[in-house]
Parts: sequence; C-alpha cells; structure tokens
Amino acid sequence: MTSALVNKQFRLAARPVGMPKNSDWSVTTEAVRDIVDGEIVVQSIYLSLDPAMRGWMNEGKSYIRPVAIDEVMRAGGVGKVIASKSSRFAVGDYVSGGTGVQNYWVGAADDKTAAFYKVDPKLAPLPKYLNALGMPGMTAYFGLLDVGMPKAGETVVVSGAAGAVGQTVGQVAKQKGCRVVGIAGGKDKCDFVVNELGFDACIDYKTGSVKDGLKQHCPNGVDIYFDNVGGEILDTVLTRINMKARIIICGAISQYNNTTPVKGPANYLSLLVNRARMEGIVVFDYAARYPEAAAEMGKWMAQGKFQTREDIVQGLENFPDTLLMLFEGKNFGKLILQVGQE
Amino acid sequence: MTSALVNKQFRLAARPVGMPKNSDWSVTTEAVRDIVDGEIVVQSIYLSLDPAMRGWMNEGKSYIRPVAIDEVMRAGGVGKVIASKSSRFAVGDYVSGGTGVQNYWVGAADDKTAAFYKVDPKLAPLPKYLNALGMPGMTAYFGLLDVGMPKAGETVVVSGAAGAVGQTVGQVAKQKGCRVVGIAGGKDKCDFVVNELGFDACIDYKTGSVKDGLKQHCPNGVDIYFDNVGGEILDTVLTRINMKARIIICGAISQYNNTTPVKGPANYLSLLVNRARMEGIVVFDYAARYPEAAAEMGKWMAQGKFQTREDIVQGLENFPDTLLMLFEGKNFGKLILQVGQE
Repeated sequence: MTSALVNKQFRLAARPVGMPKNSDWSVTTEAVRDIVDGEIVVQSIYLSLDPAMRGWMNEGKSYIRPVAIDEVMRAGGVGKVIASKSSRFAVGDYVSGGTGVQNYWVGAADDKTAAFYKVDPKLAPLPKYLNALGMPGMTAYFGLLDVGMPKAGETVVVSGAAGAVGQTVGQVAKQKGCRVVGIAGGKDKCDFVVNELGFDACIDYKTGSVKDGLKQHCPNGVDIYFDNVGGEILDTVLTRINMKARIIICGAISQYNNTTPVKGPANYLSLLVNRARMEGIVVFDYAARYPEAAAEMGKWMAQGKFQTREDIVQGLENFPDTLLMLFEGKNFGKLILQVGQE
Repeated sequence: MTSALVNKQFRLAARPVGMPKNSDWSVTTEAVRDIVDGEIVVQSIYLSLDPAMRGWMNEGKSYIRPVAIDEVMRAGGVGKVIASKSSRFAVGDYVSGGTGVQNYWVGAADDKTAAFYKVDPKLAPLPKYLNALGMPGMTAYFGLLDVGMPKAGETVVVSGAAGAVGQTVGQVAKQKGCRVVGIAGGKDKCDFVVNELGFDACIDYKTGSVKDGLKQHCPNGVDIYFDNVGGEILDTVLTRINMKARIIICGAISQYNNTTPVKGPANYLSLLVNRARMEGIVVFDYAARYPEAAAEMGKWMAQGKFQTREDIVQGLENFPDTLLMLFEGKNFGKLILQVGQE
C-alpha cells in the first residue's frame, strides 16, 4: 500500500512573462493512489533541470506540447520503483523517464510520455543518467556527429561549454580529432573545460570579448558551431565561420526569458557568403540510436577519457529557485535537483 | 583600330549609404586603347542588373571582393567581339562575361575575372543568356536542386517569384513535380507566374498578408523556401515550415539598402522545432556544372515547357535609375540594360 505516502508536486499556475516567478507555481500535495494491474509507483530521486523547461511553460506549437495550467511540471528524472503491478519493472528497480516535478509518479509501466527505462547504478552513478548518458548527452552526441559531421582537424566551438550539453559536445569532438574551443561564463568554468575536460581553449564571455577570443583561439576559423545560447554570441560566431561551416541550433538560453521579441541572428547572411548551414536538432529523433551513443561514451568513460560534472542541489522545495540558476548561469555542470534518497 | 571609339563608363565614386544616389557614381569617357597580342575588345550590348550589385558596392569581406572606388562598376553582360588579337575569339563572336558598366571592355581574351565564353544567338535570344541561361538561372537551378533537394509532391515557396531567379526556381520545381507557390509584389507579377509560368499560386505581398496566403496556398506546409528577399517575409515563412524543411538563402533584397542593422530572422528557432536547415548558396561554386543545367533547361525551353521574361531598359546613361528599379520592385522579369545594338 502506497496510499500513506504524500506526494508533493509543483504545478504550473501561470504562464511566466520573462523569468519565472514564484507565483507561476502552485505547490499541491495528494496521497499516492493505489495502483491497478500494469501500473507502477516511481519515487523520484534526481530531477533533471534543463533550459528547455522554460519553453514548455509557454503556449504555442513547439516540438512538444506545452505543460498545461495546473498540470504537474514536466521533468526528466531518475527514480526507484517502490510499487509494481507490472511485469516490466520490479520493486527496487532504478528507472529513468518523465517523472515530473514531484515526489512520486503513478501510472502505467508502459506510459508513452513517461517512457521509463531501467538504469543500472552499478554501471554509472545515477546522476550520470541525466547527463552524458541521458538527454543532454544524446543531444550533444547526435547533434555534433549527425548534424555537424565533424572531420579530424576541424575547429568546433560550443557555447554553454560547462553545461550538460556543452561538456559532452566538446569531449566527443576531441575524441573525433577536432580542435575544441568552448564559450562559458567565468574563469572557473573555463578552467574546468580546459583542464578537466581537455578542451583546447575556452572564452570567458563575462570578462572578455567573444570576437577577440575567437580570433585568438580559432586561427583557422570556425567549422562547426554548436549553439546553446543564441543572441549576441551566435551573431558573433557567424562573423568567424569558414566556408561550408555547420551551425547546430540546439537552444537559445539567452532568449528564453525575453519579454521583447527573440533577437534573430542579424549576421545570418554569413551563411550565404560562406555557403554554410544552420540546422536544428531535437534529440527525440534519435531515440532508436541512444544505445549506440551510450555504448561509445560509456567506453570512453571506462577508459578514463571522458568526464562529466553535475551540480546537484538538494530539496524538492527548492525547485523554483534552482531552475533560475540555469538562466543566471549559476550552475556549474549539469543541474540536478535531488528530491529523494537512492 | 578601335582608338576612334569612345568608351563611356560608370565608376563607383562613393560607397552608398542606403539606396545608391546619383552622386555615388562618376561617369567617365576614354578612348578605347589599341590591343596587343592575346587581347580583345568586346562591345557591350546587354548588361545584367542584379540585386547582388548592391553588395559589391560595400566595403568588407564577402564572397567576392568589393568594387573599388573609381573602378568601373562590375556587371555581367553579353556583347560582341569587335577587335581580336586572340585565337579564342573572332571578330563577330557573341560572348557573355564580366563586361562592366561601360560600352567597351578591353583586355586579355582569357582574363579570369571577365571569364568570357561564346554564346550563340541562333540557339536563344541574347538576353536569355543573362537570365535562365546565365547566372540567375544557374543560381536557381543549383540552389533549388542541390541545396533544396526537392522531392515530387513537396511544397516549394519562392520569394521574388517574378524576378530572374524566382522564375526559374518555380519552373524547375514544377518540372520536378512539386507544388509551387510564389511571393511577388503586385497582381501583374502574380498573374504572370501563375498563368504564364505555371506556378500553382502566388501571394501578392503588397495587397495581402503573406501569412494568410501561406495558410491558404500551402495547406500541407512549406518543405522548401527559396529566399531572395529576407526581412519580414523570411520570418513569416519560418512560421509555416514543415519538419526537415530546407531554406535556401540566396539573397536578401529587402535588407541591402538598410541604414540600420540587417534584420535577422527572429523566428529562426523554428529551425530547431522543425529540425530544419537554412543554407546559403553562391552560384560560382557550380561553375563546372553550368553546362548540365543549361542542357536541361534548354531542353525544357525547346519543348515549350519553360518560359522566361526579361525587362529590358534602353541606354547606358540610364544605369543609375534602372538599378534602383530592383530595390523598388519596379522591374517585371529579369532586369537588363541594353547599351548597344546586336
């Protein structure tokens, strides 16, 4: 019986204008209901906090439906099965999937939206399944390799370099023989990607000119730019691209909380001058190939050639403030909210 | 002896700010010099006036060097060889190449910049060699087919539909089995591309909403957008693209005379949502394959399945005002300045 358990949930109370405020959330509690045949209860342990969540809070057509008003906020997470009437999962299994911002997820074991799958805490620490072995890692891997098509010797630039996606983009590019230059905010993050992750250089956009940094660290121009931020940085990189460059549009964190219209890339005609392309990626398209990516990155990890860093904040009640860390550039590594014990 | 001939020339006197003014040009005259071994004199007959010329008048790195101050303005043209000390061309030959905005071109027959090649007025009227059988046609053909990669049944939208590039884009797309919707300014141009060129529909941006037009005429969305104009129209089309859409960036005539920064496409994140791409094209990259395009379009012309329209203005002295017609949308068909007799 799980009905003695109290499920605390963050629901979307209002569609934010600009940066999300506390009043955009409502906190509710409900008893965990009894399950019927085919259902499971998953206790959330780690929740993945991602820039994309800001987009899910807006109305309007996108690559995924918006979170509805009064709906539990969507989030990926890793948790433990604590009750099961399904043959797919046993009590004690660890799973990754769409837990939502709540303590307990209840529903059919084969729910298509939650899309739970088993993860093994002996193969990798659970938070890694929300980082390189989860959506950010898959986004980085397939965006870089399938859209960017790097060749050894090419120069790859990645913004949000110390973030979940950026860490993996840079390290995969290094494995493929590229020169890798990150863009990140602050000396600590820049030192980390160079000294710990093996990037060739990193430009601190908070203290220096990105344009000068690109001139200095990309003497042969930019062949691939993996963009997580949009805005001025995208525009600046556009002035330094090479012939036949590839720009992967993964996100635009600088624009997500705009109350004015999105800043389009004014230098987009550089695509014409350089016969270059700009292409979007959504990770779900590669779902059938996740095992391929996990196997290759897992091999590099086992060889000690691939690191990841997580920034883990404690407590479900801290969800609203922790989410804002992403937009203030305050997280250092993949941002994760721990809401339960392993 | 050609030294009795007076060569009138339009030279770039100043780099324009916004729309070119008369004072941005100087008109000079000089005697046509005697030629030496290997040289020819070409009398200009038809000059190609193109939106790209506006870009060549600006300073700064681009896909081609800027026209220098006091240099004869660059232009493609068709002319007649009237003197020759080269075995490549005989007096009386018709040639296409970089004549410049002047009555006579004088120099080496194998000059790489002018890049003259023979054209046959019996196979096609000379102005066609500046339209479908020239740079605009090649731009349209390779941009659509190589970058756009249309499949039968897909919907292709092209802006500047009645212009030199647009005419050919739409007709090539029709030959490949696509649904073709043009965007043009004015009822006459729209009627022309639908009734004469066989487009499925055309949206008049001057009298109606492009967004509504796209909803009406592209019920299955937009798979390929061939962009000659940039600005608001590009942004509007971005809201109607399909998954895996291709946007070919060929030009941005709406932005060439800006005195404010170029308007970047604010809706570029539609590329992400739709896993779409935006890619630039410069026709020179396809030089080795021009004969392939000319052969295929020539075949369609001979079969009566491919029309082109030129808008021919008379008189070298009218160059400055005629050029402005492009930016005011006043030309109807490929804009050509006739400066000599066939």
